[in-house]
Amino acid sequence: MAYQSVAGGICAPKGFAAAGVHCGIRHNNAKKDLAIIRADVRCAAAACYTTNKVHGHPIDIDREHLKDGYAQAILVNSGNANTCAPGGRELALATCDLAAAALGLPAGDILPSSTGVIGQAMTLEPFARGIPAAAAALDHGPAGSLAAAEAIMTTDTHPKQKAVEFTLSGRPCRIGAIAKGSGMIHPNMATMLLFMTTDAAVAPDVLQGILNEVVPATFNQISVDGDTSTNDTVTLLASGLCGNAPLTPGTADYATFAAALTEVAEAMCRELAGDGEGATKLLECTVTGAPDLATARAVAKSVISSTLFKAAMFGADANWGRILCAIGYTPGDFDIRHTCVWLKSKAGEIYVCENAAHHPYSEEEAAVILQEDEIGIHVDLGCGSAAAKAWGCDLTYDYVKINGDYRT
Amino acid sequence: MAYQSVAGGICAPKGFAAAGVHCGIRHNNAKKDLAIIRADVRCAAAACYTTNKVHGHPIDIDREHLKDGYAQAILVNSGNANTCAPGGRELALATCDLAAAALGLPAGDILPSSTGVIGQAMTLEPFARGIPAAAAALDHGPAGSLAAAEAIMTTDTHPKQKAVEFTLSGRPCRIGAIAKGSGMIHPNMATMLLFMTTDAAVAPDVLQGILNEVVPATFNQISVDGDTSTNDTVTLLASGLCGNAPLTPGTADYATFAAALTEVAEAMCRELAGDGEGATKLLECTVTGAPDLATARAVAKSVISSTLFKAAMFGADANWGRILCAIGYTPGDFDIRHTCVWLKSKAGEIYVCENAAHHPYSEEEAAVILQEDEIGIHVDLGCGSAAAKAWGCDLTYDYVKINGDYRT
Repeated sequence: MAYQSVAGGICAPKGFAAAGVHCGIRHNNAKKDLAIIRADVRCAAAACYTTNKVHGHPIDIDREHLKDGYAQAILVNSGNANTCAPGGRELALATCDLAAAALGLPAGDILPSSTGVIGQAMTLEPFARGIPAAAAALDHGPAGSLAAAEAIMTTDTHPKQKAVEFTLSGRPCRIGAIAKGSGMIHPNMATMLLFMTTDAAVAPDVLQGILNEVVPATFNQISVDGDTSTNDTVTLLASGLCGNAPLTPGTADYATFAAALTEVAEAMCRELAGDGEGATKLLECTVTGAPDLATARAVAKSVISSTLFKAAMFGADANWGRILCAIGYTPGDFDIRHTCVWLKSKAGEIYVCENAAHHPYSEEEAAVILQEDEIGIHVDLGCGSAAAKAWGCDLTYDYVKINGDYRT
Repeated sequence: MAYQSVAGGICAPKGFAAAGVHCGIRHNNAKKDLAIIRADVRCAAAACYTTNKVHGHPIDIDREHLKDGYAQAILVNSGNANTCAPGGRELALATCDLAAAALGLPAGDILPSSTGVIGQAMTLEPFARGIPAAAAALDHGPAGSLAAAEAIMTTDTHPKQKAVEFTLSGRPCRIGAIAKGSGMIHPNMATMLLFMTTDAAVAPDVLQGILNEVVPATFNQISVDGDTSTNDTVTLLASGLCGNAPLTPGTADYATFAAALTEVAEAMCRELAGDGEGATKLLECTVTGAPDLATARAVAKSVISSTLFKAAMFGADANWGRILCAIGYTPGDFDIRHTCVWLKSKAGEIYVCENAAHHPYSEEEAAVILQEDEIGIHVDLGCGSAAAKAWGCDLTYDYVKINGDYRT
């Protein structure tokens, strides 16, 4: 199975234009705060949302607009989450009406999303200015995707994009994505907004099925701080413009598409976790030898979620006892005594724990390996064949600084 | 029901002596690292331990020695957790033999405990020197309790003790405690060692029953960082020397004793959470109006465990959206729309969230209230009558610093 990275983010697949503008939802004029992604044709659409009981008003509207399985545009703002906000539902609906007018689409084909502070009322005025401006700026090229990726950022330090190309029965096909993190990232997604596009032809229910397979293995396996956001959304629009026969489960094309989507999703997970608030290091935990998939996922996620281990990684300290500790409090029925642990980076690999006990290694070598900005943790549970990955980041002074005065 | 605080910690009840010495398990000569608590008579004993699959070797020995429900001494070291450590079981047994010889007791009546770094081998040599020294220093007065409280400290900034006096059928009775925190504190206890003594007469099974009631409401409701330690232990020894008729469930004396034990446990929870690693503020969350006790406990704990909320408290930021968010991702069947939240300290109280939406308050007043070092968060779920508390602390630069280079 071959897929190669290409430029262009969400505009890489055929039939998508995007834009990002500043319209005044944020006070900082230098920061874009409104994005539109518009498809040339009505798209099959699928989405996954936060499991938090508290959730943004736009998520309710999204669900309603996606009931028929189709959509043609995504409208996103940063700066205000429109969550626990007075009049938030009415505001989200009004923004869809504005976008419908500006884009010449039915309001029911627009999917709204918001990210930012919770509990503060929004006004329609910035949208009334920003939506027509963004509609006028829509661009089918890489600049469009980049502008949209910039507009959805909150505390992210850089825009996040990815696109791959592969073939479905000989036809070139693409998947593109933009995302924003970077705090409040944990189970069942994050203050994570992730918008993906593809020119593959896929029926809505098949598309939702693929997304439902990929999200638990990827986006649900990220944690920056253990907090599950109120506004997490992953959306995937399929234009069908690559001209393949619509995907059917069980076929080679279906498997190729699912693998390519997983590739894009994993790349975005690494981007999101590595740019976690205040992070200096990306942590990728790979669990093998687990008795079942649920245990493999839970163990991988427990390791990268442990604040003690995250702090140790900031200090480049090979404190594997904290890894064992985090494995040990994971629910699941397995015998801890077979657990082995390796730490690695591009500077090398060390075997630090054999059968739940110390394995001799050089602390000097460990210090060199852990100075790198991408650290791999390999845990083998030695009691089965299930495997999973999870992505996190170190816990740093800057995380505290960013979140100690986020609103001020 | 009246109980009053008294001095003396674990030596406040009749029949207990304690000591703490430096014997070389730690390199720092100024830090005591070995404690002994010895009862004058064989005591009914009860204990609760960590639920982590990885646990210290001493915990296995503790369980074996407590099978008959009785014990007469507790032996504790700091500086090394004796967990995932080669030869750890044999070492723990050997320390009991040394203590048995020094104290003139059967080894099976000694309960060993260890706290400190995981995965490093220990040697018996410091114990061979320290145990006789501690036995010779045993003191029935407040100095004995203080020395033991000091010897079990790891990153704690101060020793933790508490004792209360009350009456059982007219006879004065006492409960005393010492504890250590202060990181890796979360569900099902912590790197928390907590030793309690009483001169009440209680049969072992009744004592264990009371402890099993009190621990879930108190020590299991503390979180400093979400990590459940490998060595958590709560132990309670009852000498019976106050001369009461042994406690029986359903009687007034039983209720009095359980309430006094809860009082001591809550006081220690506040001490432990307030002295969490790097903490500048104690957070106490009180949940009312919950549909059931499990939900009340889960919501309270979710709030004080949220790293985003903890960081906001460090910044004295009344970011109630993060409280709502943490309530919202708590498992449990309740309608978030009735949730109300108040923040308070000795400087005042503000009503910040009414029915899951913003309630007007003064940011200036909020800033003054949140400058205090003890912050109360009151959450009313508005859908029942169950209530619970949980205790945590803010997330600070110093937490990161302490845990970024703990071993160095």
